[in-house]
Amino acid sequence: MDIAEELAKQQRSISVAEFFEKNRQILGFDSAPRALITCVKEAVDNSLDACEDAGILPDIFVQIKRTGELYRVIVEDNGPGIVPSEIPRVFAMLLYGSRFHVLRQSRGQQGIGISAAVLYSQLTSGKPARITSRTSPERPARYVEVMINTAKNEPEIIREKDIDWERPRGTRVELEIEGSYVRGRRQSVYSYLKNVAIVNPHARITFVEPDGSTERFERATELLPKRACEIKPHPAGIELGELTKMLRYTERRKLSSFLKESFTSIGNIAAQEVIHNSGLDPSMDPRSLNYDQSKRLFEALRRIKIKSPPADCLSPIGEDLIRSGLAKEYKLDFIATVSRPVSVYSGNPFVVEAGIGFGGELERSGRVDILRFANRVPLIYQQGACAITHAVEGVSWKSYGLDQPGGGLPVGPAVILVHVASTNIPFTSESKDAIADIPEILTEIDLALKEIGRKLRRFLALQETLSERREKEEIIGRILPRMADKLADMLGLERPDISMVVARIMGNILVRRDIKQENGRLRVCIEIENNTSAQRSFKLHEILPLEAEELDPPARRVDMGDRYDYQWRIAIRSGERMVIRYTIKNHLQRMPEAVVEGLEPEIVTGARVLSDV
Amino acid sequence: MDIAEELAKQQRSISVAEFFEKNRQILGFDSAPRALITCVKEAVDNSLDACEDAGILPDIFVQIKRTGELYRVIVEDNGPGIVPSEIPRVFAMLLYGSRFHVLRQSRGQQGIGISAAVLYSQLTSGKPARITSRTSPERPARYVEVMINTAKNEPEIIREKDIDWERPRGTRVELEIEGSYVRGRRQSVYSYLKNVAIVNPHARITFVEPDGSTERFERATELLPKRACEIKPHPAGIELGELTKMLRYTERRKLSSFLKESFTSIGNIAAQEVIHNSGLDPSMDPRSLNYDQSKRLFEALRRIKIKSPPADCLSPIGEDLIRSGLAKEYKLDFIATVSRPVSVYSGNPFVVEAGIGFGGELERSGRVDILRFANRVPLIYQQGACAITHAVEGVSWKSYGLDQPGGGLPVGPAVILVHVASTNIPFTSESKDAIADIPEILTEIDLALKEIGRKLRRFLALQETLSERREKEEIIGRILPRMADKLADMLGLERPDISMVVARIMGNILVRRDIKQENGRLRVCIEIENNTSAQRSFKLHEILPLEAEELDPPARRVDMGDRYDYQWRIAIRSGERMVIRYTIKNHLQRMPEAVVEGLEPEIVTGARVLSDV
Repeated sequence: MDIAEELAKQQRSISVAEFFEKNRQILGFDSAPRALITCVKEAVDNSLDACEDAGILPDIFVQIKRTGELYRVIVEDNGPGIVPSEIPRVFAMLLYGSRFHVLRQSRGQQGIGISAAVLYSQLTSGKPARITSRTSPERPARYVEVMINTAKNEPEIIREKDIDWERPRGTRVELEIEGSYVRGRRQSVYSYLKNVAIVNPHARITFVEPDGSTERFERATELLPKRACEIKPHPAGIELGELTKMLRYTERRKLSSFLKESFTSIGNIAAQEVIHNSGLDPSMDPRSLNYDQSKRLFEALRRIKIKSPPADCLSPIGEDLIRSGLAKEYKLDFIATVSRPVSVYSGNPFVVEAGIGFGGELERSGRVDILRFANRVPLIYQQGACAITHAVEGVSWKSYGLDQPGGGLPVGPAVILVHVASTNIPFTSESKDAIADIPEILTEIDLALKEIGRKLRRFLALQETLSERREKEEIIGRILPRMADKLADMLGLERPDISMVVARIMGNILVRRDIKQENGRLRVCIEIENNTSAQRSFKLHEILPLEAEELDPPARRVDMGDRYDYQWRIAIRSGERMVIRYTIKNHLQRMPEAVVEGLEPEIVTGARVLSDV
Repeated sequence: MDIAEELAKQQRSISVAEFFEKNRQILGFDSAPRALITCVKEAVDNSLDACEDAGILPDIFVQIKRTGELYRVIVEDNGPGIVPSEIPRVFAMLLYGSRFHVLRQSRGQQGIGISAAVLYSQLTSGKPARITSRTSPERPARYVEVMINTAKNEPEIIREKDIDWERPRGTRVELEIEGSYVRGRRQSVYSYLKNVAIVNPHARITFVEPDGSTERFERATELLPKRACEIKPHPAGIELGELTKMLRYTERRKLSSFLKESFTSIGNIAAQEVIHNSGLDPSMDPRSLNYDQSKRLFEALRRIKIKSPPADCLSPIGEDLIRSGLAKEYKLDFIATVSRPVSVYSGNPFVVEAGIGFGGELERSGRVDILRFANRVPLIYQQGACAITHAVEGVSWKSYGLDQPGGGLPVGPAVILVHVASTNIPFTSESKDAIADIPEILTEIDLALKEIGRKLRRFLALQETLSERREKEEIIGRILPRMADKLADMLGLERPDISMVVARIMGNILVRRDIKQENGRLRVCIEIENNTSAQRSFKLHEILPLEAEELDPPARRVDMGDRYDYQWRIAIRSGERMVIRYTIKNHLQRMPEAVVEGLEPEIVTGARVLSDV
């Protein structure tokens, strides 16, 4: 009879699994190629988190197989395993997990990811997920086939049994899904895994593609990243409603101990000051505060200057890895990096790191590439939705030397990398592809970008000077060779190398590398000559894909994963000359250019200059 | 002892309210200005849906008040009201609603929106939501103060009572929130409500701003939009897992009736064909199908050609409203619109409509404006995440006459409007700001954009011809006036209007409007002269902010909300002349230009030409 009553009859509650079954695009399953990547991503994220939690160097196996019209995704790790009773809920219940209630940097934080992949799998293939897990060599492995009862958001075990497994410990996930396999572009499983390997150099990842070809991303270090510590919320940016909730559920019975125990960065003195400013009694029971008292406490908390949260709850990538990550991916003329101090939004600490690469073989007329990372996970989709992209668009790049037609992304031969690490990354959706436009985070990214922008501008200004100088050098370089040719011709000799002469005329540091073959090895000799009027100190790098031997003088060796960076510290007086020697197997396609670090590019001849201005 | 066991202890389930409390940015609460808009949006969406469900012309009151450091958001409607027992769950329980399980176009579809606003309100203000609702003049109004128990995702009633209320029926929501009020830009409450009014011309919206100023968006029609019908899923794009679930839970006991009753667009013949192709027995119990049989049925369903879903489950905006919406917002030289046929993704019917406006006062050097709508709701944030934006970026606009430097969004004096209507809009997140990149939807938007692009190209080509012709006209127009001036001077007469002469020389349609003041009214006389060599039929529009009277001949009047469009159909032979007359109150700042529709712009002098080429 009554419209309102009729409408009321249709009201009902929706299970979170039903919700996502209908809105699977929110979870990152909106197209067949993306669905495949998302499945791999969720499983690999979990494997990395589990290994790191257990202090195990990750060894992850990923395989994608074609099965009729579907694909089978297999992800297997050497992690700590999952106890049999937990397997069904971990894999077949949305909003179930171990990391949600903990303030610590991790890849998984929502308790949704892997169950979302299982949901998508059963939706498109009608088949259960197959899980194998073993927690110790003394126990059998457990095999479980499980589906999600979406009406209830509960696991439904189809089959389970103990089985033999060759692994002493670890977890294997097998999902059959509708997908589409692509290679050779940014948005692909291959590229995703490659980027994971770059920022997780402690992980070994083996990837078998549908055609059977195998790619191994070898680990570049045996050191696990520093484990991020669990912390309490930071008072900066906490909301009144959050504080009210904390007051209500605390186990402390005095306001002063509540403050000290509930927040990071609040000690005795800060607690006293907050309570004094709020005009409250320090021995009050936190649960007894009324609305106005809570509000006074809240305002006192907001006003007080409290030190930043400890950085050890976060595990940034680090400027070195950002630099080598960029250098690995692109041939560049210039790289600059920056790491910002720890900051806070809504009580969550976060840190922003960024890098920019310029020149080299990058395309000159397209929009710049943006590489986005959050908690060491590469972000692939939703670039346009991401605070990182918005911050890049918000910078006026013209003043840093990049074109920016029609506003928006800058155009030019540059690549920008940004990593945000936090105890809680504020993603725009459950698919975890884009960081939301949180003002505090936007500000930090903006500051980081401007810092690398300034470095870029200085580099480009220097390039100007340099190119003028090079012009002069080239003119001299054109005349002298002709004279040399003439002379050689007249005397019936070979034409001498005259770069040395050029360097001398120009007053340069000359780096001259001579390579000879000998018994299947290359014998490398690098002459360095200081033709400037002052003493010079710098680093010389040889970045080689193979191990060098017989180094004289000895060099520092930095393991870069697929290459080694040999470094010599050099101090050379005006007019002096020195020689570096080493040998290497003759398996090289071509020798990469020698690299000099710590000198102004315009005074170097014969080597690439790493200009971290 | 065992790592896996230790990890297992930390596993627990997460309430959906807790999840969103921690990830409020997913709901659209990532910054203070956006939070305010999102609150208004969720409440207004609900009000519009409720009114339309009950067949009531919506009359919505929105007020934003400053209260200390917070804002109070008030949204009140004349809808059917909510029965008292439902109020707590409707407003303070996430994933509770009436529209989730129904395939029909509506604004709300998730059962999250308004409870999300309540969640944000209690989080930032610590205060409950205050709801007043009345379902009938015979019953008292119910007043409820309610909060969400986030650990359980359940409503917690703080206070409730029956009260007197001046409204016979309706609902009022009051939320106190942390926000930030902005005006005068696209991302503002004001602009949001204005855009709502444009695509919902049957709604009256009154808006009181924090400074007390009141804006009323008056309704432009007394007609409710055609109510979208509820439908069953369409077989196109349905997934195997979905089919399996439907088979399992159907109340039908025969396969043939299952098919007919569970899907739209499947009748007797189609059902027989599907069953025949699947090789199954039509009298089988749907619940008895095993995996292989389900798969055969699924494949037979995929292969059969089935008619499109009925269009009446959708309620598009319509090309007329898109055109007048664009014309209302911008001064334009050209508008083209398109409405695509109904299409289907994953069993959900959808339709795409689009419009493009060009020239006028639009900025020439910036990126084009994009207006996005989904189910008659303006989309404000997350433009970069939206399939609409991605489709615009994917079109090669250079071939349609717009610049597109560095790829990405086109640049130029254009505005593009796209509306997607569906029984289930696949948003990228619960904040409902962006449509996901569903391939079927991207394709339809792409086709729509290319269609309006072709119209734009034809218009621009014509402009070329036109501008050449105008040049000639202008030259003649410069010489003739001088001759006329000279003549008038010599004869001691007033200088005659010579546009008629120009039109005659050029062989044009001349529209000459003469306006005289008389007793506080304007007396308008429009002369039309056909100087071309053929008969011409077209429409003449006078778009006036006030009512015209004494129209001779009478005109068709179209109500455009804040203006009236008077239309005359005109057929005029070569060499003939006709006159239109009307009067209007003399309250006009300036008379808008007369508009001609249905003629090539190059043959018209004295009026703006609406070129829907």
